[in-house]
Amino acid sequence: MTLPRKDLFDIPEGMIYLDGNSLGPLPKGVAAAVQDAVVAQWGGQLIKGWNSCGWMAQPAVVGDRVGHLIGASAGSVVMGDTLSIKVFQALAAGLAMRPDRKVILSDNGNFPSDLYMAEGLIDLKGQGYRLKVVDPEAVADAIDDSVAVVMLTEVDYRTGRKHDMQAITQAAHGAGAVMVWDLAHSAGALEVDLTAANCEFAVGCTYKYLNGGPGAPAFIYVRPDLADVVKPALAGWLGHAAPFAFDQTYTPGAGIERMRVGTPPVLQMAALEQALNVWDVTTMRDVRAASVALCDLFIQEVETRCPALTLISPRNGAQRGSQVSFAYDNGYPAMQALIARGVIGDFRALNVMRFGFTPLFIDAADVVQAATILQDILDNRLWDDPVYLTRSRVT
Amino acid sequence: MTLPRKDLFDIPEGMIYLDGNSLGPLPKGVAAAVQDAVVAQWGGQLIKGWNSCGWMAQPAVVGDRVGHLIGASAGSVVMGDTLSIKVFQALAAGLAMRPDRKVILSDNGNFPSDLYMAEGLIDLKGQGYRLKVVDPEAVADAIDDSVAVVMLTEVDYRTGRKHDMQAITQAAHGAGAVMVWDLAHSAGALEVDLTAANCEFAVGCTYKYLNGGPGAPAFIYVRPDLADVVKPALAGWLGHAAPFAFDQTYTPGAGIERMRVGTPPVLQMAALEQALNVWDVTTMRDVRAASVALCDLFIQEVETRCPALTLISPRNGAQRGSQVSFAYDNGYPAMQALIARGVIGDFRALNVMRFGFTPLFIDAADVVQAATILQDILDNRLWDDPVYLTRSRVT
Repeated sequence: MTLPRKDLFDIPEGMIYLDGNSLGPLPKGVAAAVQDAVVAQWGGQLIKGWNSCGWMAQPAVVGDRVGHLIGASAGSVVMGDTLSIKVFQALAAGLAMRPDRKVILSDNGNFPSDLYMAEGLIDLKGQGYRLKVVDPEAVADAIDDSVAVVMLTEVDYRTGRKHDMQAITQAAHGAGAVMVWDLAHSAGALEVDLTAANCEFAVGCTYKYLNGGPGAPAFIYVRPDLADVVKPALAGWLGHAAPFAFDQTYTPGAGIERMRVGTPPVLQMAALEQALNVWDVTTMRDVRAASVALCDLFIQEVETRCPALTLISPRNGAQRGSQVSFAYDNGYPAMQALIARGVIGDFRALNVMRFGFTPLFIDAADVVQAATILQDILDNRLWDDPVYLTRSRVT
Repeated sequence: MTLPRKDLFDIPEGMIYLDGNSLGPLPKGVAAAVQDAVVAQWGGQLIKGWNSCGWMAQPAVVGDRVGHLIGASAGSVVMGDTLSIKVFQALAAGLAMRPDRKVILSDNGNFPSDLYMAEGLIDLKGQGYRLKVVDPEAVADAIDDSVAVVMLTEVDYRTGRKHDMQAITQAAHGAGAVMVWDLAHSAGALEVDLTAANCEFAVGCTYKYLNGGPGAPAFIYVRPDLADVVKPALAGWLGHAAPFAFDQTYTPGAGIERMRVGTPPVLQMAALEQALNVWDVTTMRDVRAASVALCDLFIQEVETRCPALTLISPRNGAQRGSQVSFAYDNGYPAMQALIARGVIGDFRALNVMRFGFTPLFIDAADVVQAATILQDILDNRLWDDPVYLTRSRVT
C-alpha cells in the first residue's frame, strides 16, 4: 500500500503533526465508535453490556489485535491500566521468578516512570533489593548473575536510540536473568517480534503510534510458556480464575487473563479497538521503511538549514526508532514558536527538540515544509518572542 | 428538590433499572461531553490538549468534585486507575506508616478484590505480613496492637449491611491502627463525612452511584495532614513532584498529587465530569432519605408478595446502604427471568438477588411494579424456562 494514508485521520487543516510519538491523532471512525459505546451500549444495554457488548472480553480481544502487531501469539497479550502499572506487574512477576537474586538492571535512557515504578516495588520488597541503572551502552556488560530482571525500553524516548532486543535478551538469558521490554515507542512504529526475541515480558502503551487516544489502555505480554505460571502481584478480581464466584481468596486466572486487575475502561477500549483498524490496510514493514526514509530526509534538511541544532539521534536508521531529536539550548522557545506556526513537535528537558514521524499521515513534503519553517524561526530568531519563553512546559 | 429526576438520564423505555449499584445509567449530556472530548479536544488539539483542554489537571479537578460528595476537603481526593489499584495504594501507604506491625485486618463482607489486593501486597512484602479476615460483627473486637491497617468496605456488596464508619475508625485509632475505607457502595448513595470520620485513607469507584460509565476512574482520599507524608508504592511519573523534569529518581509530588500513577483516561474522565453535574441539582441528604424509603417499600412489597424470598439486608434503613438483597435458591434463573421482563437487578453467588435503589431515577411506582413482576415470575415459575438457567453468569 502507498503511504501516507492521510484520509484515515482527522488532522486539523494546515497542521504538520510530528508528535504521534507522544499522542497519536484521531483516526476516522473513532468518534462514531465511541459514541456507539456511550449511547447504544452503555445507554441502551446498561449492566447487560458486560456480556451483550463484549465489554468483559474486550481486554483479551483487543490484546490479541495489539499482539498481532508485535509478534505475539494469540492469547499472550491483555489490555488494561496504564503503562506504569504494567511495568510494575512485569517487574514483580520477574522478581518472583528469581527469588535468589536482588537486582533490577536498567539504563538511564529508560523512561523515568519505569525506573520510579522499580523504585517503588523495591521499597515494598526491602531485603536488599536494588535498582541498578547504567548507560545504555553498558547494559550488556552489566548483566551478571546478581541480576534478577533486566528492564529496558527498546527505543529511547529522548534520542530515539534503539536497543537490539534479541541480543540483549540473549545476554540476559545467558546470565539467568528475566527480560522485560517496554515497547512504548516501538508498538506501531517498527517491526517487533516478541516471539523471536523470546523475552519473558513486554509492556507498552497505545496512545502513541497506535492512536488509541489520550489515556488509552496499556498492554502486557507474557511469554506463553509462563502465562500459567507467573504470580500476579496486583491480584485484582478480574484476574481471578472465577471473578464472579466471589471467593474469599485469590486464585489466578488461566493464562494472560491473570494480568488483568480491575474493571476495564470500556470507552477508551472502544476508541482503541476502532483505531486499530488502521492496521488492516497497511503493514508494519511498509510503515517502518517509510519512517526511516522520512527521518533520514528530516535529518538532512535540518542539518542543511539549521546548523545551530545538533543531532542526538542515531544517524543510522536501523539503530533508531521513528523519531529524530536535536539538542538546542533555545529548544524550548523554538519549539513553542514552531507549534505556533502549525508544526507540532515536542520538547524534552533539558534541551531536546523531538520530532516523531508517522508515515501513516506524514509525507516527504511535510518534512521539507517543517524544516523550512524551523529554518525561518531560527534565522529570524522568532523564538525570541517572550510569549514562547513563558508558556507552560507541560507538553 | 423533588426526586426522582428521570429527565436527567437516558434509560430505555419501559426498563426499571435496579442495578445502579453495579453500573449507573447514562446521564443526559454525557454523550455530547464525550463526543466533544474526542472530536474537538483530541481531534482538534491533539497533544496540546494536555494543557489547553485541562486534561493534565482533570484528576485533581474531578477529584475535588467527588470529594465534595463524601465530606473531603478540597485537594484531598484524586482520580485515576481502578478501585483495586487504589486499594493497593492505600494499603501499601498504611503499612509503611506502621512498620512495626504486620497485620491487615478486614472482614468477609468486603469485596473480594480488596482482599485479593491485600494478599498480593502481603506476598510482595513477605517478612511475616498477613491478612486477617473476620466476620463483619467481629471487626471491632479484632482490632489490637498487632493490626497495622484496618481495611473495610462501608456497605457490603451482597447484603447492603452498613458499617459504622466513625465508631470503627475510632476503634482502629484507639489501637494505633491506620483506617482504610472502601466507599464503592457509599459514594453517591448516602452521606459520607470523611472529615468527621477522620480515617487516613478512603477509596472508591465512580461507575456505580456516581454514574461515570463502564470503566470510569476510581478515586483515593488521603487525610490532609498525611498527604505530604505518605509514601506512594506505585511511584508513577504523574505522581512525581516534577513529571516533566524527567529526573532519574522519584520524588513524590505535593499532597494528593503523589497518588497519581500514569496517564489519566481522558475520555472516561470527560464522561464522569459531566455525570457529576447531576449533583448540582440535588443533595446527598435528599437522595439518602428517598433511598431508605424506596428500600423499605421494596422489602414490604416483596415480603408480602414473594414469601419464598428471605431478606438478607438489614431491615433498619440506618444500617443499610442503598440496596436490598434477598436469598433465594432459584435466584439466578429468577433474576434472568426478571431481567427479560425489563426489571434489571443482579445476582451474586451463591444465592443472592440484589436490587439497588437510586432515587435519582427510581420512584415508588417502579418499586411496586418491580415487586409485582417478581411475584408473577415466582407464582408462575417463569424462571423455570431453561433459557434462564444456561445464560452466562457474568453480570
